[in-house]
Amino acid sequence: MSAAAPIRVGVLGAKGKVGRAICEAVEQAPDLELVAEVDHGDRLESFGEAGTQVVVDFTHPDVVMDNLKFLVSNGIHAVVGTTGFDDTRLDTVRSWLIERPDVGVLIAPNFAIGAVLSMRFAEAAARFFDSVEVIELHHPNKADAPSGTAYRTAALISEARRKAGVGPSPDATTTELDGARGADVDGVRVHSVRLAGLVAHQEIILGTQGETLTIRHDSIDRNSFAPGVLLGVREIGNRPGLTVGIDPLLDL
Amino acid sequence: MSAAAPIRVGVLGAKGKVGRAICEAVEQAPDLELVAEVDHGDRLESFGEAGTQVVVDFTHPDVVMDNLKFLVSNGIHAVVGTTGFDDTRLDTVRSWLIERPDVGVLIAPNFAIGAVLSMRFAEAAARFFDSVEVIELHHPNKADAPSGTAYRTAALISEARRKAGVGPSPDATTTELDGARGADVDGVRVHSVRLAGLVAHQEIILGTQGETLTIRHDSIDRNSFAPGVLLGVREIGNRPGLTVGIDPLLDL
Amino acid sequence: MSAAAPIRVGVLGAKGKVGRAICEAVEQAPDLELVAEVDHGDRLESFGEAGTQVVVDFTHPDVVMDNLKFLVSNGIHAVVGTTGFDDTRLDTVRSWLIERPDVGVLIAPNFAIGAVLSMRFAEAAARFFDSVEVIELHHPNKADAPSGTAYRTAALISEARRKAGVGPSPDATTTELDGARGADVDGVRVHSVRLAGLVAHQEIILGTQGETLTIRHDSIDRNSFAPGVLLGVREIGNRPGLTVGIDPLLDL
Amino acid sequence: MSAAAPIRVGVLGAKGKVGRAICEAVEQAPDLELVAEVDHGDRLESFGEAGTQVVVDFTHPDVVMDNLKFLVSNGIHAVVGTTGFDDTRLDTVRSWLIERPDVGVLIAPNFAIGAVLSMRFAEAAARFFDSVEVIELHHPNKADAPSGTAYRTAALISEARRKAGVGPSPDATTTELDGARGADVDGVRVHSVRLAGLVAHQEIILGTQGETLTIRHDSIDRNSFAPGVLLGVREIGNRPGLTVGIDPLLDL
Repeated sequence: MSAAAPIRVGVLGAKGKVGRAICEAVEQAPDLELVAEVDHGDRLESFGEAGTQVVVDFTHPDVVMDNLKFLVSNGIHAVVGTTGFDDTRLDTVRSWLIERPDVGVLIAPNFAIGAVLSMRFAEAAARFFDSVEVIELHHPNKADAPSGTAYRTAALISEARRKAGVGPSPDATTTELDGARGADVDGVRVHSVRLAGLVAHQEIILGTQGETLTIRHDSIDRNSFAPGVLLGVREIGNRPGLTVGIDPLLDL
Repeated sequence: MSAAAPIRVGVLGAKGKVGRAICEAVEQAPDLELVAEVDHGDRLESFGEAGTQVVVDFTHPDVVMDNLKFLVSNGIHAVVGTTGFDDTRLDTVRSWLIERPDVGVLIAPNFAIGAVLSMRFAEAAARFFDSVEVIELHHPNKADAPSGTAYRTAALISEARRKAGVGPSPDATTTELDGARGADVDGVRVHSVRLAGLVAHQEIILGTQGETLTIRHDSIDRNSFAPGVLLGVREIGNRPGLTVGIDPLLDL
Repeated sequence: MSAAAPIRVGVLGAKGKVGRAICEAVEQAPDLELVAEVDHGDRLESFGEAGTQVVVDFTHPDVVMDNLKFLVSNGIHAVVGTTGFDDTRLDTVRSWLIERPDVGVLIAPNFAIGAVLSMRFAEAAARFFDSVEVIELHHPNKADAPSGTAYRTAALISEARRKAGVGPSPDATTTELDGARGADVDGVRVHSVRLAGLVAHQEIILGTQGETLTIRHDSIDRNSFAPGVLLGVREIGNRPGLTVGIDPLLDL
Repeated sequence: MSAAAPIRVGVLGAKGKVGRAICEAVEQAPDLELVAEVDHGDRLESFGEAGTQVVVDFTHPDVVMDNLKFLVSNGIHAVVGTTGFDDTRLDTVRSWLIERPDVGVLIAPNFAIGAVLSMRFAEAAARFFDSVEVIELHHPNKADAPSGTAYRTAALISEARRKAGVGPSPDATTTELDGARGADVDGVRVHSVRLAGLVAHQEIILGTQGETLTIRHDSIDRNSFAPGVLLGVREIGNRPGLTVGIDPLLDL
């Protein structure tokens, strides 16, 4: 890496479970310095006093807009994993950034780099294969099937195939026990496994004559967001304006 | 291996696709000798003239009973992959064997050792895990879903769990897109993938707190029956009477 | 399950990390009741006072022999995960059990059911396949390669093949970059992967003409011993004398 | 697909094993028409007479240059899988194309789309993960370990990490049985499995805190080049000049 001065990082929601994991990750990164930890009840001004360059916000939809308004108006970049951003909120953030064109804000629903990469790779590969199916596997306490990631993956694959004029995956099934062939998401078959001993996993299998390509993502702990957050912290200073999702940071 | 004289092997249906593959496999095995090849129109007596000890029969339901009657009455062991054996036919073969208690006959619907082993292992492991699901993956020209092997695997797992008093796999799904959670076969979820580039594959995943055990069988060509047939040829001389399925030969 | 009275369970080393996990697992099992938690400085007599039937001991080599002597002489079954048992110690425990032939003691180095099952399955399958190799994958902080489990797995496979007269796995390699073909453990190739994001995983791949059988074990948290410990607690009352390893409990 | 007239395709080396597979694949594609089959001894002029637009050449290094010179000078596009192209030969082809700027020639050492995609994905992902290793698995008759594809994959990964300033994969191994950790190819560990029942497979595993991304390619028959060749046939008419490798056609 470079011998430049470390980036000065602050954390909002520093005492929450996620916030603590981020503080720890920042402290272990040699090119980052943790200079301010702020939680419910603390003053936002301490970020400025500490010379903070980038603030990570994993807080709550109720407070995140106030946080962001403060950070943007004070020239501090932001990396945001807090949920609840709809188009109205995103437009509001954009309007603040017009006043401060030097500031970068990254808002992402998913910081797991492997999950984002696997979706992008599946999308890029989809048009070259006759067949594609998705298997997602999760712990048995999950309430929805398929997972949100599987829905989104199937949608990306489906759109890529439609654009390239690729027809549906071949399937000669005439006798099916109800459910065997999985759910149909935009023309892509999705299978949801729920199993003790698993956390969050997804496999995209693409096949053509004589060969298959499999893209698999395994996430086994809740800290798998940390590398993606650090990537955001390192990059957001060079990306003024609003960035939605970590995909643009991956240079694919 | 032993320095004993090679076993003298004959093949019935020797000119068919499967028959030719078996002839080739026998010829390549140093402990076996191919002494007679018989097909439609040839005389069965040539087996006796060649001193055949074991005959492999992959022919047709219309002729296999006549073949077997001849072989048993002439004291020749038989390894049979021909289909169409119901209880009545099996009882008929047993009645012939009463007259010739020195002769062994093996009739098996599936000679793929890996497939049989994986079913047995799944059955043995099933009661130690909270969760179990089956994923079977085949070429897209297959008409039925799930596969016959998957049905049988699920039934074996289900019975093992029932005997041990194990309850159903935990599943908190409340929102399911139709088919996502697969088919329910005797209480076991089975997922059927159909994909260009595949042949015949099955994966049984068992899970409990913090760990999973996966048993996977991949069959990529039609000759995967050959090692199982050779195993039958080598063992049937020591197993007088009727043996159904190769399971007993595996000493599990 | 049965409607019998729950088994009354005590835990030694109850305040340690492992001990707490076991207490929690016992409390969640409907057929078990946690009646006594004992740690450093507590009186062993409290087990008798609480009517304990089985005690789980994950303590220290320095104290485990005293614990066991007390438990056996008081007619309490024991399930022991503490390390440091050599032949001398095992003989001492056996001598105590002669006096109390009604008591069962289970001492096991590895309670991960999946790991034990996968080794047994590999051993049972080894003689039916031309080829077999082992890939073990662990976190990058592991000091030894291959893992102890991989060494033991390879030894079991090698012995099973030797007994059955199976020759070495075929290998036509003539040009090898140093290390590419893995380590040779008793004639079995073992490959050790070390990777961030992994915990402890092992895959045994067996192959013959046209088919492969893969047995894979994934352990992703430190609590993967719990189901094996509970299995021991449930079974040890029916197995008087000394049992070493959980293998006999698996009825394979 | 489009309702345009089918592309008129010729095949050179049409009677060879590969040539016949390509003829068959062309005949089955609705948007392609097989108009000329040429083999040793046949006249190249028949391509022109048949109105051939694209010729596929899987012949021999001894004749491929003469073939190409004829095709280029006659304004016929070429897709070439014949081996033996060094820089000198490529430059010669380029010089011919200067005269015919409307003609496209694709020369590729590997037409397996899945193999090429998996290398590109590994290269794109490499800089975002702390760790990466490669496992390649082949039939036991292969002479070299690692495979050529594995060497090239490791080189691409290594170069991508070097450019991004990523250090070596973490590895705390202090005790290693010789070969356990695989071969070191440009700083990337590569493991070579040789197993009966396999054909050609490769798995790239990338890991960071709490997550792994696995990219796996399985090739199970010799016809896995066909989809890549057809892709070349469809695209080369729009790509005048020399294209080396199918990567540019994949739009990654």
